[in-house]
Amino acid sequence: MMNYPLLLRSILYRAYTVFPEQEIVSRDYSGMFRYTYRDMYGRVCRLANALADLGIRPGDRVGSFAWNHHRHLELYFAAPCSQRVLHTVNIRLFKEQLVYSINHAKDRALFVDEDLLPIIEQIAAQLPDVETYIIMTDKKTLPSTTLPNVHLYEELLAAAEPDYEFPEFDENTAAIVGYTSATTGDPKGVIYSHRGLYLHCLMMMTGQLSVDDRDITMPIVPMFHVNAWGRPFTDTWAGAKQVYPGARPTVADFCELFDREKVTYSVGVVTIWMGILQHLRANLGKYDFSHVRFLLSGGSALPASLTQAYEEEFGVTLYQGYGQTETTPVTFISVPKAGMVNLKGPERYRQRAKSGLLAPGLEMRLIDADGREVPHDGRAMGELLLKGPWIIDSYDRSAAKTEEAFLDGWFRTGDIATMDENGYLQIVDRTRDLIKSGGEWISSVDLENAIMGHPDVLEAAVIGISDIKWQERPLACVVLRPEARGKVTEADVKAYLADKVAKWWIPDEIVFVGEIPKTSVGKFSKKALRELHSAGQLA
Amino acid sequence: MMNYPLLLRSILYRAYTVFPEQEIVSRDYSGMFRYTYRDMYGRVCRLANALADLGIRPGDRVGSFAWNHHRHLELYFAAPCSQRVLHTVNIRLFKEQLVYSINHAKDRALFVDEDLLPIIEQIAAQLPDVETYIIMTDKKTLPSTTLPNVHLYEELLAAAEPDYEFPEFDENTAAIVGYTSATTGDPKGVIYSHRGLYLHCLMMMTGQLSVDDRDITMPIVPMFHVNAWGRPFTDTWAGAKQVYPGARPTVADFCELFDREKVTYSVGVVTIWMGILQHLRANLGKYDFSHVRFLLSGGSALPASLTQAYEEEFGVTLYQGYGQTETTPVTFISVPKAGMVNLKGPERYRQRAKSGLLAPGLEMRLIDADGREVPHDGRAMGELLLKGPWIIDSYDRSAAKTEEAFLDGWFRTGDIATMDENGYLQIVDRTRDLIKSGGEWISSVDLENAIMGHPDVLEAAVIGISDIKWQERPLACVVLRPEARGKVTEADVKAYLADKVAKWWIPDEIVFVGEIPKTSVGKFSKKALRELHSAGQLA
Repeated sequence: MMNYPLLLRSILYRAYTVFPEQEIVSRDYSGMFRYTYRDMYGRVCRLANALADLGIRPGDRVGSFAWNHHRHLELYFAAPCSQRVLHTVNIRLFKEQLVYSINHAKDRALFVDEDLLPIIEQIAAQLPDVETYIIMTDKKTLPSTTLPNVHLYEELLAAAEPDYEFPEFDENTAAIVGYTSATTGDPKGVIYSHRGLYLHCLMMMTGQLSVDDRDITMPIVPMFHVNAWGRPFTDTWAGAKQVYPGARPTVADFCELFDREKVTYSVGVVTIWMGILQHLRANLGKYDFSHVRFLLSGGSALPASLTQAYEEEFGVTLYQGYGQTETTPVTFISVPKAGMVNLKGPERYRQRAKSGLLAPGLEMRLIDADGREVPHDGRAMGELLLKGPWIIDSYDRSAAKTEEAFLDGWFRTGDIATMDENGYLQIVDRTRDLIKSGGEWISSVDLENAIMGHPDVLEAAVIGISDIKWQERPLACVVLRPEARGKVTEADVKAYLADKVAKWWIPDEIVFVGEIPKTSVGKFSKKALRELHSAGQLA
Repeated sequence: MMNYPLLLRSILYRAYTVFPEQEIVSRDYSGMFRYTYRDMYGRVCRLANALADLGIRPGDRVGSFAWNHHRHLELYFAAPCSQRVLHTVNIRLFKEQLVYSINHAKDRALFVDEDLLPIIEQIAAQLPDVETYIIMTDKKTLPSTTLPNVHLYEELLAAAEPDYEFPEFDENTAAIVGYTSATTGDPKGVIYSHRGLYLHCLMMMTGQLSVDDRDITMPIVPMFHVNAWGRPFTDTWAGAKQVYPGARPTVADFCELFDREKVTYSVGVVTIWMGILQHLRANLGKYDFSHVRFLLSGGSALPASLTQAYEEEFGVTLYQGYGQTETTPVTFISVPKAGMVNLKGPERYRQRAKSGLLAPGLEMRLIDADGREVPHDGRAMGELLLKGPWIIDSYDRSAAKTEEAFLDGWFRTGDIATMDENGYLQIVDRTRDLIKSGGEWISSVDLENAIMGHPDVLEAAVIGISDIKWQERPLACVVLRPEARGKVTEADVKAYLADKVAKWWIPDEIVFVGEIPKTSVGKFSKKALRELHSAGQLA
């Protein structure tokens, strides 16, 4: 067979050749921007030339500090396909982490959304490698800024040559670099190669998640978060119409876009689906979601109650994908097997709450503390190890972190899971979030899901608290629906749990809070909860 | 990312891990054989050990001379995944071509179906490299045979060790070798690498052709013909239930399997779909085809009239794939774009008759005789060139044939095509089958399709005949429905064509024949027709 490298340019090529008229919709500062794949291709060519005009060489890294929009999409293609590396900086990192990751990556240029300028202005003096800043906006003139060496994105493109021939190079070349959200220690750098992204995104076009040009997709998961789970590449490859929600979208914005653009498929983290559900309930009949084929949830476990609410109240199917920054990310997908499609009642939603089936192309192991494979019986817990073409083999520029994360060539996910007889993985907990009580393990995730099944509970997060007798005991932080506040008591929640979890799992303490702190990617921050508890601020 | 090779063992691994209970059904000599992916995996392990027991080393080639059944499926995995190479010998080749290809491939062992023994017995003396023959049958004892060194497949498996660890090796390693059906000259050998098959089959799981474990698939296209278009790998990867039609299947057998096993998806050449259509029409109400999601046709152009008949008479959707032995094979797929799904009337079927949209991962060019790219306007004809990870870069052990087939690193398909504004390829003809008349080109394929639109015509093939004035003129060989024979005249057919093709395209001569000779893979054999004409045997 031809020695034909697996490069992201193949994705761009097909979109331009086969689906030139397909539409891309992007929420810009002054309204909806619409163009076609043909237009996008033309601008990607100009952007590739503009990178050269800026003095960015092959192999150099350029950062993006941006929301989900068409300019970010152009960067997703122009940088990697011209052999530069795009660093998708997480706009929600703390300042020290931002400085750390941009300096660690050695970004030579930074593409910044206009409304995010204030954040970068505050840290620019600490970014010695960044030589130039490019501002992304639909305004015609440069906004006032303290940043040095500033360009307007649209002016750069207008000045660049229109024709560009995408080069051929080794498929193992770096395409994108991302950083873990780092609940402990410094963020860790992960390099996504062309080959890894290509194979991951081709996999994401297969089976029950398959997408084609009849689809209208909207990535809600941020493009600075693990390649937006590959959607910008996958959806372009499939020739789907794409909808980008732009800067600072609210749940109302998402609901309007679903309705107006007739979105068929969207991806986002669990907390987003919780927020959208509340908004839909509060605005019954306002939004048409009938064209949605399914929503894909990720980032943390999908509660059975959430799947049930979407399905029974709005006729919308919710699946989940499981993965990590280190795995591009998707490794398991929770689609039902043939015999499970028509399950009814609680069994249906228990099944839907599983983390999923192994994606085509990967290999897995579940091992106990002694490194022995545990049985696939749905009960035995083990750490999940993975191998495959879109799993990292090292952290960028960090031998020490790499050492910890691998075992005999397998990537250690740090997640504890079970595997049932049907091949469904169930993540039980993060290794560090498991609660060790009296020599047994309590899954904080299972406990949270049980609590979130209570009709008056909006959110729940469980952490382990030191205990002299039992070593650790669970503490639950619970957010109630506004109308239930002051009415539902700690005893009510414990009573609710009585027939749902083992007696010794029931938290000793349940604390009602106004909201649960979230990480930069929208997950419950157990680190923040533990800190609040240590400081005596969880009461 | 991990340096994780793309090997066919990944497909086997997922099927065994995720879908162990899924069923495989195979029509054996004494009835239907049923087992699970778990059983299949166990037998593949034994077969891999058995190959070693036979003295077959890594890199050695073993041949299969077999129909579509579960033992052939086991060979599809056991040989390549244990680093041997499977040569899928085309059972319909002429004897000289059989001898040529088995000797050219240097097969060290040959796996032969019981009912095909007589063919191999006749040529065994001319196969010096074949050291051992393995007979595939469900009988418990060796059939009587003149072959030397004979083993019974089932006995070999029973005697082999049950455990096998599939090795890791370079993804560019040869997995399968096949031969072109060679309408002219000796068959040419094509080597399919693990990487090429892996990527082709992953692509075949995407988009509108996507298949999953809810599907029940039946490959009608022979497993000795271009990897059965990848189905055995694709369907295993997807965890689909698979139905194999076994030895000497008739159209009635196919229809019964469709009905009884509730097949959702099948692939086969155009002539098969013609035969099945006749059988369905002759047995109205007998077979239930309601669970069929779609049928994929290939091998030659799909007439609009056939698609229309399936859709309007039986509610069955027919798509076509385009490809060649040299391209693994699928390179274009004729699924409708979003805006075309609801086309009505003749426009609908004209659209469906197009060869299709470029598959994700490939690159194409259409060039004229001077090597210039022709416009994509649906009219300009050019030779189709292809590049991609499942396109060959050479013929096996044949530098001279390789030389002719490539141009600047592109594979020359030898097919003349147009490309329309919507990205749909339309194969116009084989370079050698185009009829050059008065300095213009006539597409024999278009003319055939026009003639096959006549309600009384079952089959039509058109060849170019030397003509002193015009250089070449078309001659059409036509097979009428039995009840129309002797009634429909040459003048009727010409009159029918009058408003369907240009006047100068209308064949000077129309010959009614009982059947059109077919090639070893079921296509109309224009070579045989030309020979009959030269010999004065076409009336």
